[in-house]
Amino acid sequence: MNMFSKATKLVVATALLAGLSTASMAKDKVYKWKLATTWGPTLSPFIDAPENMAKLVEEMSNGRLIIRVDAANKHKSAFGILDMVKGGQYEMGHSASYYWKGKDIDLLPFTTMPFGMTAPEQYAWFYYGGGLELMQKAYAKHHVLSFPGGNTGNQMGGWFRKEVKTLDDLKGLKMRIPGFAGEIMAKLGLTVTNIAPGELYTALERGTIDALEWVGPGMDINMGFHKVAPYYYTGWHEPATELQFLVNEKAYNKLPKDLQAILLTAMKISSYNMYIQNYDMSATAWSKIATEYPDIKIKTFPKPIMDAMKQANKELLTEMSKDHPLLKEVLDSQAAYQKKAREWTKMSDYLYLKDNL
Amino acid sequence: MNMFSKATKLVVATALLAGLSTASMAKDKVYKWKLATTWGPTLSPFIDAPENMAKLVEEMSNGRLIIRVDAANKHKSAFGILDMVKGGQYEMGHSASYYWKGKDIDLLPFTTMPFGMTAPEQYAWFYYGGGLELMQKAYAKHHVLSFPGGNTGNQMGGWFRKEVKTLDDLKGLKMRIPGFAGEIMAKLGLTVTNIAPGELYTALERGTIDALEWVGPGMDINMGFHKVAPYYYTGWHEPATELQFLVNEKAYNKLPKDLQAILLTAMKISSYNMYIQNYDMSATAWSKIATEYPDIKIKTFPKPIMDAMKQANKELLTEMSKDHPLLKEVLDSQAAYQKKAREWTKMSDYLYLKDNL
Repeated sequence: MNMFSKATKLVVATALLAGLSTASMAKDKVYKWKLATTWGPTLSPFIDAPENMAKLVEEMSNGRLIIRVDAANKHKSAFGILDMVKGGQYEMGHSASYYWKGKDIDLLPFTTMPFGMTAPEQYAWFYYGGGLELMQKAYAKHHVLSFPGGNTGNQMGGWFRKEVKTLDDLKGLKMRIPGFAGEIMAKLGLTVTNIAPGELYTALERGTIDALEWVGPGMDINMGFHKVAPYYYTGWHEPATELQFLVNEKAYNKLPKDLQAILLTAMKISSYNMYIQNYDMSATAWSKIATEYPDIKIKTFPKPIMDAMKQANKELLTEMSKDHPLLKEVLDSQAAYQKKAREWTKMSDYLYLKDNL
Repeated sequence: MNMFSKATKLVVATALLAGLSTASMAKDKVYKWKLATTWGPTLSPFIDAPENMAKLVEEMSNGRLIIRVDAANKHKSAFGILDMVKGGQYEMGHSASYYWKGKDIDLLPFTTMPFGMTAPEQYAWFYYGGGLELMQKAYAKHHVLSFPGGNTGNQMGGWFRKEVKTLDDLKGLKMRIPGFAGEIMAKLGLTVTNIAPGELYTALERGTIDALEWVGPGMDINMGFHKVAPYYYTGWHEPATELQFLVNEKAYNKLPKDLQAILLTAMKISSYNMYIQNYDMSATAWSKIATEYPDIKIKTFPKPIMDAMKQANKELLTEMSKDHPLLKEVLDSQAAYQKKAREWTKMSDYLYLKDNL
């Protein structure tokens, strides 16, 4: 039984196809985004966080959201990420919030703070202590959303040519230590400079500088600093460096709800993953330093120096937050949470480790 | 211009709908799964991990994978999870791997081990040190996939009515401490028992037992143990209790690739999230204990006791793994990774905390 004429069947088939593709369009629309990072294309584990995030998004969305990751050598604007995401040239960015302190001091505290929280404490602050809400508040004036983007864990305090025993030993030392930690060191009488990564080793070898801080064993060992500056100090200034994902607000709002959920989840898990990845990388690199470079002398700054750093930190923060109520609100929130969480850290992991080193 | 008769339009519309629903079927098929947990419906944060996982899966899959979470009061088989997932009554489970040690000793070490790794060390072992592969290997004979399902962080060593100063003080003590840690305590001369949670307080108050371990401040404070046993010992036996998601292998293999990616991601992020959630819960509870219950005496077991526990642990593990090559392979892998990672933990967080308590 043929209910339709041949011509009508053709029309039906055509209408069917047209209807199908229209109906699927909204649901299967492919969003193509671009993400700009501060990092070079091989700077593991920093570059891995956005790349793994993009891969996960593509898999989970079945190809409906594709994010192209541009490393710094591509867009040539390592420190222009915030502006590019704000302006919409890139829907997303991956960088570190404390790089924008010259542009907007309120954005400083979302990466890490000297003498601040450790990684689990800071994640607890972000997700259960109001930190994430404060970060959105600080970025709202830029019409950008911001999320944790990967933690390095505790960074080392740096390499010194000579042992530092007293505050006097620090005075006049030339050290490469950029950013807020550099301001603390300047207060202690050091001459603080910044030097491009490629020139660091030579500067240290020739005595142009007496000390420098870089990151941690995973990245430091490749630079060879231990050959000329064997005193390797433990960390104080970046206890839990958290990178950030930035998302253009308008672009985010255009995504359907399921893709928003996929994007949020992929960013959050990539952040946790980088923390664990770098834990492994640091542990692996450290185990090689200890066996292959036994001449490295591991030191912790003596208490009077630590106390002076803490005092300088406190004074600088008070001064900086005086005319910046939102910065003050964030710093107060962090200090209160740290006080509470540190008691538990002491009771749990610290005392456990003390008996199991 | 009307190209179709009224009757033809109706037929076209019907065909269109039929065509649409057939074409979308494969792609939009809804999978309805069930997950059984060991926990009661309000046991936060344990129950939150599977519930949040299921919620995320539903959002990210736009309702294409729905997982119903059944708490223990529903399926009445708190310790039957592995069997139910294996048998296919439930596609998924959420429990703790060390509960299956009586069934299959190879499954013991994937939750936590006495004197073992801390949470970040253990996550690094799972994801970058071969741990996850070993876990799949151990569960393969049960045709079940297994994934980290949420970490409690470091658990406390328990509540004691009297201070424990020497090994002799331990001998003859009656303690509620189940599982593998109980075997260690038995080796030290304690009389070890297990008692249902609802009867713990009364048993401790009446002196039926002299000590017990439960979890940590978040859950302990509600039980009131501090009122009758004020000596609260820091942890040694469960430094990083990781719960597990179990997935029936056949059910998993039937999912399309994007839903597999969504499920894997949702499980992994729920695991990390529970670690951070419990960090916050423990810190919050602890801050209340310290201010509201100043009479609690925080203690760490003296070194000779710790050493005896470590020795007993070692002997028991050697004995247990003698005839179990896979268990031995896992324990060796954990020990090697812990040795490497602990050096870095010491250099980074431990030394940092030492100066910032």
